[in-house]
Amino acid sequence: MTYNVLSHDPLILVNFKTYSEATGKKAVDLARKIAEVGNKTGVKVGVAPQFCDVMQVAAQVDVLVFAQHVDPLAPGAFTGHVSAESVKAAGATGTLLNHSERTIRMGDILKSVQRARELGLLTVVCAGQVESTAAVSLLMPDMVAIEPPELIGTGRAVSKEKPDVITDSVRKIREVNPTVKILCGAGITTGDDIYTALKLGAEGFLIASGVVKAPDPVRVISDFCEAANRFSEMSK
Amino acid sequence: MTYNVLSHDPLILVNFKTYSEATGKKAVDLARKIAEVGNKTGVKVGVAPQFCDVMQVAAQVDVLVFAQHVDPLAPGAFTGHVSAESVKAAGATGTLLNHSERTIRMGDILKSVQRARELGLLTVVCAGQVESTAAVSLLMPDMVAIEPPELIGTGRAVSKEKPDVITDSVRKIREVNPTVKILCGAGITTGDDIYTALKLGAEGFLIASGVVKAPDPVRVISDFCEAANRFSEMSK
Amino acid sequence: MTYNVLSHDPLILVNFKTYSEATGKKAVDLARKIAEVGNKTGVKVGVAPQFCDVMQVAAQVDVLVFAQHVDPLAPGAFTGHVSAESVKAAGATGTLLNHSERTIRMGDILKSVQRARELGLLTVVCAGQVESTAAVSLLMPDMVAIEPPELIGTGRAVSKEKPDVITDSVRKIREVNPTVKILCGAGITTGDDIYTALKLGAEGFLIASGVVKAPDPVRVISDFCEAANRFSEMSK
Amino acid sequence: MTYNVLSHDPLILVNFKTYSEATGKKAVDLARKIAEVGNKTGVKVGVAPQFCDVMQVAAQVDVLVFAQHVDPLAPGAFTGHVSAESVKAAGATGTLLNHSERTIRMGDILKSVQRARELGLLTVVCAGQVESTAAVSLLMPDMVAIEPPELIGTGRAVSKEKPDVITDSVRKIREVNPTVKILCGAGITTGDDIYTALKLGAEGFLIASGVVKAPDPVRVISDFCEAANRFSEMSK
Repeated sequence: MTYNVLSHDPLILVNFKTYSEATGKKAVDLARKIAEVGNKTGVKVGVAPQFCDVMQVAAQVDVLVFAQHVDPLAPGAFTGHVSAESVKAAGATGTLLNHSERTIRMGDILKSVQRARELGLLTVVCAGQVESTAAVSLLMPDMVAIEPPELIGTGRAVSKEKPDVITDSVRKIREVNPTVKILCGAGITTGDDIYTALKLGAEGFLIASGVVKAPDPVRVISDFCEAANRFSEMSK
Repeated sequence: MTYNVLSHDPLILVNFKTYSEATGKKAVDLARKIAEVGNKTGVKVGVAPQFCDVMQVAAQVDVLVFAQHVDPLAPGAFTGHVSAESVKAAGATGTLLNHSERTIRMGDILKSVQRARELGLLTVVCAGQVESTAAVSLLMPDMVAIEPPELIGTGRAVSKEKPDVITDSVRKIREVNPTVKILCGAGITTGDDIYTALKLGAEGFLIASGVVKAPDPVRVISDFCEAANRFSEMSK
Repeated sequence: MTYNVLSHDPLILVNFKTYSEATGKKAVDLARKIAEVGNKTGVKVGVAPQFCDVMQVAAQVDVLVFAQHVDPLAPGAFTGHVSAESVKAAGATGTLLNHSERTIRMGDILKSVQRARELGLLTVVCAGQVESTAAVSLLMPDMVAIEPPELIGTGRAVSKEKPDVITDSVRKIREVNPTVKILCGAGITTGDDIYTALKLGAEGFLIASGVVKAPDPVRVISDFCEAANRFSEMSK
Repeated sequence: MTYNVLSHDPLILVNFKTYSEATGKKAVDLARKIAEVGNKTGVKVGVAPQFCDVMQVAAQVDVLVFAQHVDPLAPGAFTGHVSAESVKAAGATGTLLNHSERTIRMGDILKSVQRARELGLLTVVCAGQVESTAAVSLLMPDMVAIEPPELIGTGRAVSKEKPDVITDSVRKIREVNPTVKILCGAGITTGDDIYTALKLGAEGFLIASGVVKAPDPVRVISDFCEAANRFSEMSK
């Protein structure tokens, strides 16, 4: 599935982490539910399953699929690593990089962004602070994701708890990179969190436990998509 | 596919690394060829594809499938990591650990061996020197693989270049662990290398470029399997 | 200062970590206090200060000095690493390796143990579980230290909370290495903890917060040394 | 020793790595020779010895002393790590960060830069490519060092082999950070290399084998300093 990253439509990307609720067959099931909400609401949605699940999700569900990480290497003698080629061959549209649970070296972010581009994979580079989101934007990824690590998984939304991190990051990022798509995440659990973040300048979302661990993921993702549509209406 | 690791039949395990010759569809093709030779010769064979390819190989080919690595974690908030659960759900029989291209911490070897056992996954822990092969045997994996890193990918077989590493490792390993299955690898390209190593006390093989990068992998793997059978005949 | 690791006299080794109470001039002051108690009680004592403090402590205090870690490398182009040569040149008697706060790869433990031996540095390899203490003993360090990580810094002594870890480790270690000196640590704060651990088979101690963060480190280390002497008396 | 990083005088900083020619007493000797040349020529010089040598060099030689790395942590239970506090207490003026032989995570560069600033330590953050030198400049270090890793230790000077890397980096860095001091390095062995690099926009140098492994380090560092003076004359 392809995605025009230059569009201004909000993107809602659900990171499956290694949650048991989103492993194996459950990864396909959850991806399908998310895709259905995306279809119904017209909001662009994506999922980032575990490596072993990328292929089946991409094959069975009409949804954007991102790997959670790739290693900065060309094919070769690299046992136990994740080549961008393997992720591409499995049908992924792109990959996350430098998530706070899988931080990598500066030079490796750059190499992986460059290799991904050569292979036609989109990149979402995560960073946790204002300075570092701007810094990674200079490495020319397709998207950056602002995620203050101290809020990840807390249910305390970055857009409410640390609105300045979003506005300051957006301003600093734009000073150095006018086109990179800006996602945000950490603690987001309601449509209101989404709406507020869009108002602050976010253009998309990287969300994990807020959806995956919710008692009713469909209700949550619907809430998110409706908030995104409400914002799009408003800003016309 | 299941495997009785306590049997004394030689095992030939082909590590696909991140070689382009064994990525995506080519992983399935190569696994199928290896499986056919295994079937024809009656020698137990297995493959270790990349994470993204584990599921399709396990689903489409009747062969032992090992992951190349797993991370020492329970399911949870671990973006970009490889849970044993995901590998198991993808249909793997087991996993490599601590390959010289993906070395891990001592404590993580132990944790991963223990988690794999809980999930019913076999473990092959690699080490490169006599002392370390014995040491990892105390962590109670199902198999250990002796691989002097300086010979990996060279075509100079460990069984010819460093026979003492095999005999010394076998002796030291048996002093501390009487049942762990002992594989060896590094530089093996011919049936003679296989035969020699079996005589030195190896009970199986971990092989990569010798098969994957060969002009005719089927010929090589056939050569290996015939040598294994020749040895089994001899030792009856 | 030299140390006969084959003697059966208890060793009490105080790890300064990166505690501010034991950094810079305070490292020398604390080492001096510990040395004085050692002298007075006749118990062998040592300290493991930060890299930057090794030289001044070794130069100014008559005490065994251990580095907290060394990297497994020969001299060369390795910016930001800790060569065994630099530690030796600074006057250290030995080094810790694989502390739970600085775990390293199995192969690197082996390389560092071997390099240290070439340079005449003693090694204390730490491990946290029964299986791993036995495994590291096969790498032939001079000493091993059993430290269940979950008790480190808790004040709940390993000798009281997990006596089985000590007795089982001692038994397993002795099966594979009859001469390695066996230290233990984690949560030790009183002379009773010391006495109990010696009865369980420990031959020395690796202690950090119990001394460094104590309101009166001299009182604590004196308590430890007296307990060690009491045990030595008993076992004559 | 203090240093006004905002001055436009060229800085020549010699990285001792873990070279045996610059370990222990030899670190002090080499630092003294470098300091003497600096004094004689009036060029600002500095050295980056190993951790164990920082204190003695800073105590005995009137020269800028940088650590080769610090870890991004506050004092505490961090065995085997390098606290900025320990480096400061040892008398260092600053520290290198992210050298290509000791690369660190983006977030850790930022944390270490911020901690160093709190303690009054200068930071030199290294990076190897145009994009990454600009990116690290956004993390607000005092200095950045451009070092294409493929030229380090080759004797093929970055200023001759890859002049575009310098000019492009300088331009990109200045777009995002007008004040950071820009060093360069890799392959520099002659005064001409220095002169050329200064013309291309470099304001200082990070040099290792070119000095440390030279048959006559004094001659080389004198050559460098004279070239720096020649350039300063020219540009008046």
